[in-house]
Amino acid sequence: MTQTIDHETNHVAVGKPTRRMDAEEKLTGRARFSGDLPFPGLLHARLVLSPYAHARIVSIDTTAALAIPGVVAVYTADTLKMAKAHESSRSQSPLALDEVFWCGHPVAVVLAESEALAEDGAAAVDVDYDPLPVVIDPLAALQPDAPLTRPRSKDETSEIAGGGTHADVGTAQAGEEEQENLSLNVSDRVHMHTGDIEAGWREADVVVERSYRTHSVHQSYMEPQSITVVPEQSAGHKMRVYASSQGLYNARSDISNALALPERQILVEPMPIGGAFGGKFGLVEPLAAAVAYAIRKPVRLVYTRQEELLAGNPAPQSLITVKLGAKRNGTLVALQARIILDSGAFPGAAAGLAGYLISSVYRCPNTDIRCYEVLTNKVSVGAYRAPDAPQTAFALESTVTDLCQELQIDPLEFRRQNGLRGGDPSGNPRRPVLPPLGLIECLDGIEQHPLWKERQGQKEVPEELAGWKIGFGLAVGGWPGGNDVAAAACRLESDGTISVVIGTVDLTGSDTSLALIAAEAMGLPASQVNVAHDATDTMPYSGATGGSKTIYSMGPAVLAAAQETRRQILQIASDMLEAAVDDLEFKDDNVVVKGVPGKALSLQKIAQASTSFSRRGPVYGQGRTPTPEGSPMYAAHLAKVAVDPDTGEVRVLEYVAAQDVGQAINPPAVEGQIHGGVTQGIGWALFEGLEHDENGQLLTSTLMDYALPHSFDVPNITPLLIEVPSGVGPYGAKGVGEPPVIPVAGAIANAIYDAVGVRPTELPITPERLFNTLNQ
Amino acid sequence: MTQTIDHETNHVAVGKPTRRMDAEEKLTGRARFSGDLPFPGLLHARLVLSPYAHARIVSIDTTAALAIPGVVAVYTADTLKMAKAHESSRSQSPLALDEVFWCGHPVAVVLAESEALAEDGAAAVDVDYDPLPVVIDPLAALQPDAPLTRPRSKDETSEIAGGGTHADVGTAQAGEEEQENLSLNVSDRVHMHTGDIEAGWREADVVVERSYRTHSVHQSYMEPQSITVVPEQSAGHKMRVYASSQGLYNARSDISNALALPERQILVEPMPIGGAFGGKFGLVEPLAAAVAYAIRKPVRLVYTRQEELLAGNPAPQSLITVKLGAKRNGTLVALQARIILDSGAFPGAAAGLAGYLISSVYRCPNTDIRCYEVLTNKVSVGAYRAPDAPQTAFALESTVTDLCQELQIDPLEFRRQNGLRGGDPSGNPRRPVLPPLGLIECLDGIEQHPLWKERQGQKEVPEELAGWKIGFGLAVGGWPGGNDVAAAACRLESDGTISVVIGTVDLTGSDTSLALIAAEAMGLPASQVNVAHDATDTMPYSGATGGSKTIYSMGPAVLAAAQETRRQILQIASDMLEAAVDDLEFKDDNVVVKGVPGKALSLQKIAQASTSFSRRGPVYGQGRTPTPEGSPMYAAHLAKVAVDPDTGEVRVLEYVAAQDVGQAINPPAVEGQIHGGVTQGIGWALFEGLEHDENGQLLTSTLMDYALPHSFDVPNITPLLIEVPSGVGPYGAKGVGEPPVIPVAGAIANAIYDAVGVRPTELPITPERLFNTLNQ
Repeated sequence: MTQTIDHETNHVAVGKPTRRMDAEEKLTGRARFSGDLPFPGLLHARLVLSPYAHARIVSIDTTAALAIPGVVAVYTADTLKMAKAHESSRSQSPLALDEVFWCGHPVAVVLAESEALAEDGAAAVDVDYDPLPVVIDPLAALQPDAPLTRPRSKDETSEIAGGGTHADVGTAQAGEEEQENLSLNVSDRVHMHTGDIEAGWREADVVVERSYRTHSVHQSYMEPQSITVVPEQSAGHKMRVYASSQGLYNARSDISNALALPERQILVEPMPIGGAFGGKFGLVEPLAAAVAYAIRKPVRLVYTRQEELLAGNPAPQSLITVKLGAKRNGTLVALQARIILDSGAFPGAAAGLAGYLISSVYRCPNTDIRCYEVLTNKVSVGAYRAPDAPQTAFALESTVTDLCQELQIDPLEFRRQNGLRGGDPSGNPRRPVLPPLGLIECLDGIEQHPLWKERQGQKEVPEELAGWKIGFGLAVGGWPGGNDVAAAACRLESDGTISVVIGTVDLTGSDTSLALIAAEAMGLPASQVNVAHDATDTMPYSGATGGSKTIYSMGPAVLAAAQETRRQILQIASDMLEAAVDDLEFKDDNVVVKGVPGKALSLQKIAQASTSFSRRGPVYGQGRTPTPEGSPMYAAHLAKVAVDPDTGEVRVLEYVAAQDVGQAINPPAVEGQIHGGVTQGIGWALFEGLEHDENGQLLTSTLMDYALPHSFDVPNITPLLIEVPSGVGPYGAKGVGEPPVIPVAGAIANAIYDAVGVRPTELPITPERLFNTLNQ
Repeated sequence: MTQTIDHETNHVAVGKPTRRMDAEEKLTGRARFSGDLPFPGLLHARLVLSPYAHARIVSIDTTAALAIPGVVAVYTADTLKMAKAHESSRSQSPLALDEVFWCGHPVAVVLAESEALAEDGAAAVDVDYDPLPVVIDPLAALQPDAPLTRPRSKDETSEIAGGGTHADVGTAQAGEEEQENLSLNVSDRVHMHTGDIEAGWREADVVVERSYRTHSVHQSYMEPQSITVVPEQSAGHKMRVYASSQGLYNARSDISNALALPERQILVEPMPIGGAFGGKFGLVEPLAAAVAYAIRKPVRLVYTRQEELLAGNPAPQSLITVKLGAKRNGTLVALQARIILDSGAFPGAAAGLAGYLISSVYRCPNTDIRCYEVLTNKVSVGAYRAPDAPQTAFALESTVTDLCQELQIDPLEFRRQNGLRGGDPSGNPRRPVLPPLGLIECLDGIEQHPLWKERQGQKEVPEELAGWKIGFGLAVGGWPGGNDVAAAACRLESDGTISVVIGTVDLTGSDTSLALIAAEAMGLPASQVNVAHDATDTMPYSGATGGSKTIYSMGPAVLAAAQETRRQILQIASDMLEAAVDDLEFKDDNVVVKGVPGKALSLQKIAQASTSFSRRGPVYGQGRTPTPEGSPMYAAHLAKVAVDPDTGEVRVLEYVAAQDVGQAINPPAVEGQIHGGVTQGIGWALFEGLEHDENGQLLTSTLMDYALPHSFDVPNITPLLIEVPSGVGPYGAKGVGEPPVIPVAGAIANAIYDAVGVRPTELPITPERLFNTLNQ
């Protein structure tokens, strides 16, 4: 059941539940993805992965592999020309040079005439390794005497993962780097502080400190990392690329860098994507392009699920200590955190973002946040839906709940009292106060929901769960809101429909929402608008999809293009109908003279007139928009769980997710995001985690071991769409993609605590872990 | 040697000789054309052509063909679903229904796994025909008692061939249709007249009347009719089309009509073209699309050279009678013409255009032009470079020369005295007087050329041509100038270069010229500008390439897009450099503050700034332009020939072609057009002609019989670029493609007359024909 706050609007398209334009093709299996494309002479690529977490490569013998009929080539770092192989970028240096840095590190790539032959070839590549000391645990890696993950130069700095998400600096300030005696494994550290933390502790009546650990979590998109590269030598191109990538330009520039080719010699085609969640900002494109370019044949590289788990780019493991101080009246006065993100073998965990996130939920005058990115001999990380936020929210919201317990204050009331509000100081000199944001309104939504009231009454246990304990947990979370420049075009087609032309990858139904925005701007029903995707040579500029920024940043460009298109159409109609533009209006697929029912022109006729002998020229609108100010997004979640105290098993029984979406452009799409995000959050909370042994061997390298939530693990999820309009996003919309995953682990942990009175401090909260906690 | 009239300009790009952007790929064979594309499962199509010019199809037996291993399917009109098969359009009804209408009429199409197997299959299709009476000669077809070419409904009217060429009505008026007793084979007639033709004859001191005959001529592009269609079921498309077509939208709408599919379900990709000359406005696209759609596999149809000659769409045969009356002082006072165009089995010869053309060269107060389009049992016609103009110019310029002879007036002087000039009345109420046009300036150019002076002296015969006679011939011709709406986009790339994005097919180097226009507008060297071609879903609107309208009509859209791009760049630079826009200028690939050498920003930096956090958004300019008024183009040609009076053999020894191009955007490209057009004109004049026997059997169905000029048949051609700027075209440019072919046959015929004193009245002027004329 969905509760949508009902605004009185005159919208014709925006806010109307609309079926996704891509639904039919995807549901019927007709959609063709990057790994589905047939090309004559197509070669299949398979990776040879290191079985050691850290070792020197003594030799690689490809003789046996190449002896297999149908195996066409084997490339190693020595034989594959990569322009930036010696720089510290995993995607630019995809094959191990002299050392392997994690168990799963690609050492060679085999090309063969079929998938199966490529797999046989990969198995036949004989690599001789000389094992080196490994460092697996991030805390151990931090120690000054820890073995080095790999040879380190001090020039290397962290690359922000996720490409398109840009954090507003908010209330925190980047601090000076202090002298701490740490290992060279530390690849980045950020110190943010406001006020005086020591004064905060003095002012506090109650102080709570807790430490948490999470594990690396894989994005588990349905379509694995997939790419097909077709070398060609015409129209100025060296290759045509079909990539499951979140951004066409990202793929193009990654390949351009890797092969030292001008960008325009690489054509990246728009492709449908079977999920990404941040994990497809660029991983396999340079490798696939390099082998195709080297062998001059089409090459297809599609990860197996095991390669995903061994050689993907999952979310980082975290170790977080949170210390909070509050006055007896419930005012938060001190927030200290030490956040260690395990970036695996390459930098990229965006430690500063974690610090920003943990300090952007509550008002607090005195904060002190120290963030560390540390390298270990594990697979390196990438972005995953709200990077760093599920980890920090789990830590913060667990600690806040314990603080409420100590204070004997209602946890919703505490959060309402201390939660950030629009107009609060932002700490950002460019925009000194926060824009409208709906954290409090989300809490109001939860408070008004029957499940919240049920929490305060009897906690009845369903019959089939006799002996289990019921608990309710509340948590909140926020995301700063990604933003980007954008451009779009808009055409009037000969059949009278409108086409929006963009280069933006649709991950979540954004095409349909962009069509609704264009339809609204035109004053047309959404059925009149299509979205066409353009390739890199010709598309209007679009950054990558991610960071909850597509509707927010591309939406205004589409809106502007549609408005310009409408203006052009009215001009032509004004000429043809001999009526002033102001006297015209759109009605269905006609332009009519207001109050003169007979005086009308169909859009089809206008289109035809504009492209035959025409005084005005073809209708062709264009929109280009600057980087908008961010609109932060908040969510408040309420979980009802049952816990079996005998086994530690947890079931989520019901779930309410309130989220400030500004304006739901397409409500079912927004609700779909919330359903998906909460489901992934349940994975974080209870099931998912890449676990390694002390040698760095991955213990969860198949979906038998790496546990994704099953459909029966997911309860009814009730989205509450809260609409506190953004002053910037189209029709008030804010981003919606990241928030739904953020509070989930915290809400479930708090519900478990409510049920059985022990505080889970490690994710995922497996039955084994909870059983141990219960029996400590 | 080239004589370019030197204008003093400050142009940085326009007018600078610039190498074609596509030259290297085409010269090195790297370019991939529509028939070169590999697709897995690709089927090859071959046509079964009728051996009869007119017959009833009794039965088609495909058993033997289908029994050949590798032959996959045979489609006939009965088995191939074409939505408009029963309407009178050859491309929409590509396979004969119940009757064949010409020798070469496709009856079936065979699909097989290879070209050779498809050919075997086509040979094995057994068709039983019942022959019907044929009508081959257009004059015979006109007679009321002529056999009917095919069952005729009187609803059928002529379709103007050529798509993009729109004749200005000029000095002629469309007359009322008069009652003449003519066969139903007449598919169109147009009567134009001005003044009082009878008064004209009375006023005339000298009257000359001549009749001429030309034969059908094939466009003989290097790349034959070629198309590959790939059915697909994704991204909303039913198929992807790679066609050697002059217009992407033409191909799309032809296929959309044929299959009754919405246009947006058909994606037409931009492809390089190996020549078209008007012959690729739509012929094989619906057939290829229909078979691919039916069989759900990629299909490639590439004409053989024999199919080109039997089943192409050549220029129409003509029968033209011209009667001129002039006063003794050389003033032309009466022009009468009867023009019969043989359209073959389907309408499309554009008879009215022929009438317009013949009356748009000279001032004449009294004109009477009757045009007839007649159907015969021959292949139907299409556009070929300046449709109808080589035929009418041959007739008019031959007659004018005879008139000069009668009047004892210098033929150049007569043409200067009577030739149209800018400011003359146009007969077009929308634009009552003619715009600037350079017919007289072209004659001046010829007059000043040494070859003209040589004509007046001794006609020396080269030693190796002892016994031959030398002659000089002058002729003029004009083209109204095609025009169209257009749209274009323009991007600033991350490397600081500019991309022009268009949907216009480049036949003649237009990409390079459009790049020069954009470079000029930006103030950048041409090397900084690229042209990117977009597909039908996403491209800015572009009509088909043809009618000498690309630079003239798309040029202004590119110019506008580039100007807008420049404006956006300067805005961003103004922000970044903190300088007023007016104080900025482009210098190489930098924007600099005038007079402050150190204050500069590279375009690369501006591009990067515009797509990172940006106040302005990405640079993305757009241009859309209305239909421009036409700018008529004229040419004057001078030929020097040698004739062997013993054999009738003719050799063209030297050739000077003066042409008003308004402004040569890329002079070598314009000169290339003149070289090519004159060469094709030499083909019209001396070599080329589809000849049929009385049963309609084509006697010239291979390039052994159909004689194209060899390189040794083509003399030195000296282009004289005359620049009388258009007030409309970009930087004064006019179209240049059509004029060079127009006067050639007339100039050569007049030179032969000058050499041997007999008047050739039939094209091509083969040795046999001239021998017979000499010996009559």
